[in-house]
Amino acid sequence: MKGMVYGVGVGPGDPEDMTLKAVRLIRDNEVIALPGKEPKETVAYRIAVQAVPELADKMLMALDIPMLKDFDKLAVYHREACDRLEAILDSGRHVVYLTLGDPTLYCSFSYLQHILEEDGYEVKLVNGVSSVFAAAARLGEPLAEWGESVHILPQTYKKAVSLDQNGTCVLMKSCKYMDTVKAMLRESGRRVTAVENCGMPNEKVYRSLEEIPDDAGYYTLIIAKEARS
Amino acid sequence: MKGMVYGVGVGPGDPEDMTLKAVRLIRDNEVIALPGKEPKETVAYRIAVQAVPELADKMLMALDIPMLKDFDKLAVYHREACDRLEAILDSGRHVVYLTLGDPTLYCSFSYLQHILEEDGYEVKLVNGVSSVFAAAARLGEPLAEWGESVHILPQTYKKAVSLDQNGTCVLMKSCKYMDTVKAMLRESGRRVTAVENCGMPNEKVYRSLEEIPDDAGYYTLIIAKEARS
Repeated sequence: MKGMVYGVGVGPGDPEDMTLKAVRLIRDNEVIALPGKEPKETVAYRIAVQAVPELADKMLMALDIPMLKDFDKLAVYHREACDRLEAILDSGRHVVYLTLGDPTLYCSFSYLQHILEEDGYEVKLVNGVSSVFAAAARLGEPLAEWGESVHILPQTYKKAVSLDQNGTCVLMKSCKYMDTVKAMLRESGRRVTAVENCGMPNEKVYRSLEEIPDDAGYYTLIIAKEARS
Repeated sequence: MKGMVYGVGVGPGDPEDMTLKAVRLIRDNEVIALPGKEPKETVAYRIAVQAVPELADKMLMALDIPMLKDFDKLAVYHREACDRLEAILDSGRHVVYLTLGDPTLYCSFSYLQHILEEDGYEVKLVNGVSSVFAAAARLGEPLAEWGESVHILPQTYKKAVSLDQNGTCVLMKSCKYMDTVKAMLRESGRRVTAVENCGMPNEKVYRSLEEIPDDAGYYTLIIAKEARS
């Protein structure tokens, strides 16, 4: 019988954000896949090993998938990663694939999941705390109350996202276009807070738009709330 | 010294979705607050006690806050709940307030948090898995990939939410207006899936709009994705 792939979120950084199910799956399985070059240097490993020290003695597979915009080149890396995963699955062993945050939101595992399922393998997703909620908790403020909407807006192209929304806007991956994004936020009149590297040792909290540096990093998450009258 | 209130999410239903931090805070503290009438009959208790059996022997406080639309009447219940919490905090003990899902999204604890902070007490939010992500994981599908936006839209009034958005729409609290919502979804041409009571023993998964019953309950979460060309 073929093994199963578990796409498991380890949360954004604090090992205590890991769920009991994530801990159990790591303990109960021998093969752990990690996104990156060197298994023990991946962010997911460094988070998880603090909560589950046994991880250090598992069979660790690093799947190196670079962030490319050329989808044809990217497809070669995905295929290669799936070939390696499928060799394990064909031997009847399960694979626990660890990923930052939650595996259902902007997760590089999603690409592999599509291929694996098409190839006839079974995939299960196991939630972790998403950085969207972790940032709100870190700021100590609800993301949304009662009838307020939440809009999670990734800024992945030069084209600006629209802040013309009711409720709370969460801006992710804005780092490359921070000057444009900040100008847009200023114009919107929204109340802005942000967390960089939420849950990591180098975490930074910004309580206003002005505090966010123009060179804030990739893991900067901006929460822009409607100004209250 | 005054105690601290921890607003702790226990996830949507599966006790294994609880985080290590939630488990530790329950173990380490004596006073646990729960939203509802009878402490041991609250949903949060029934989830958490499966992961942390010691919970049964804690000092349990049920805070009964009914779902009222009259904000003046509601304010009386909030004030009373905060008075009870503050009496504990003034004695130097911490309180762990357990809540379904994540404490930053549509959480009744948020109202208490505002009052407690205004009264000079310290509040910390501790994430749980949100039903938004839990439903996506249960369906085995990413909520969003790469540049896709996610719009979390609570249907709390008769006025219909707008599906005129790019990316994925997540509709919550639609049960009262299910016929209107279903008509709107049909017109949108979106690909619709839903989970009712995600993670609970009475969980139901719907793979199409047609499968969702008109009398689906309060904890029904609809995911409406843009149709792919």
